[in-house]
Amino acid sequence: MIVSIFVNPTQFAVGEDLASYPRSFDADLAVLAEARADLVWAPAVETMYPEGFASRIVPSGPAAVGLEDAFRPHFFAGVATVVSKLLLQCLPDIAVFGEKDYQQLRVVLQMVGDLDIPVRIVAGQTVREADGLAMSSRNVYLPPGERALAPSLYRVLTSSAEKIAAGWPIRTVLGEGREALERAGFSLDYLEARHADTLGPIATGSEGPVRLLAAARLGTVRLIDNVAV
Amino acid sequence: MIVSIFVNPTQFAVGEDLASYPRSFDADLAVLAEARADLVWAPAVETMYPEGFASRIVPSGPAAVGLEDAFRPHFFAGVATVVSKLLLQCLPDIAVFGEKDYQQLRVVLQMVGDLDIPVRIVAGQTVREADGLAMSSRNVYLPPGERALAPSLYRVLTSSAEKIAAGWPIRTVLGEGREALERAGFSLDYLEARHADTLGPIATGSEGPVRLLAAARLGTVRLIDNVAV
Repeated sequence: MIVSIFVNPTQFAVGEDLASYPRSFDADLAVLAEARADLVWAPAVETMYPEGFASRIVPSGPAAVGLEDAFRPHFFAGVATVVSKLLLQCLPDIAVFGEKDYQQLRVVLQMVGDLDIPVRIVAGQTVREADGLAMSSRNVYLPPGERALAPSLYRVLTSSAEKIAAGWPIRTVLGEGREALERAGFSLDYLEARHADTLGPIATGSEGPVRLLAAARLGTVRLIDNVAV
Repeated sequence: MIVSIFVNPTQFAVGEDLASYPRSFDADLAVLAEARADLVWAPAVETMYPEGFASRIVPSGPAAVGLEDAFRPHFFAGVATVVSKLLLQCLPDIAVFGEKDYQQLRVVLQMVGDLDIPVRIVAGQTVREADGLAMSSRNVYLPPGERALAPSLYRVLTSSAEKIAAGWPIRTVLGEGREALERAGFSLDYLEARHADTLGPIATGSEGPVRLLAAARLGTVRLIDNVAV
């Protein structure tokens, strides 16, 4: 097992939290040793993007559906470029991407297929705290009050998914879910039901597997999460 | 030895000669059998770009220097994308790209380095007719009169390279070369001296290895060629 650790500057826009993004290299290594990683690949920024670097992978399809891409315009070009580099540097048989960043997972699957990168992408289930909050590097920034509110995001997602599975109209469920999140104290970026593979809009559950995706801010911390219907 | 044969639609702009581009698959196979190719990889367009295809590699650096890119704006994104697909499909140890398409060669070298594609790119020397004309699929379109004029392109390139090597000022040499080509009946797109690696502008031969590159039209046929100084 090879593990890549790389905080990728090309995914961060001006004004985003690149400088303050939590870096915990030594703690990560300790955890990875326990998990019996064989190798950790943690390249320097100059190794990944030497002077004169001049190539960019620009994904469309699931990277251009008005979810994260609407809030972070160059994010997925940064993701696609660095992921393809990491995959081609390490040439693993299998690479695991977490479902927490569900749009990213779909973008990586699409790109690996389109560009014939010789690897099998495996989805890693989201790991959650006991109260349901999806684990994330950014959770450490939540003050106690916001930390207590944060699990509502997952609760609203799961209850919305249950209602849609039970046959309630998607529009109604999403409307109520958005209200519930705003009431709980979130500033909502989006709560959407999408086709689970293409991330295209979906009006009824009969149009394909449905995924619910949300992004919302608590103070200065932006949380994302998603669940299957 | 694997040989790829693929006329790539994404390199052709509207109005370019995709439909009439010379295709000689059976003749190519006969030549390749004689050259002892082990395998020919000739994918269908639907194999390369299935419905929903949504990834593009956008090169800058040597792909954005005002040579071919100025006349064919999306050409090198098409080249970079299809070349990386072909390389990752076949995973060869070595891949040969002809120096005839010199800017393309530099774009491929840059991309393979940037994206860590595990292959060694080797430059193939330009193969020429007895009179110096660089061999090209498009030469068959030259009517006899234009075919007789065509070798002037190479003659002007080599004499310009000799003068620059002998210390003449690059500006003067290029000015005279351009005039000579127009006099010979060409409509000139460009005749330029560039840094042989970056393809950046170069004012004197002391700034690095120099490459002379030209593109010019004889009637409806566009010819390109280049030589080292």
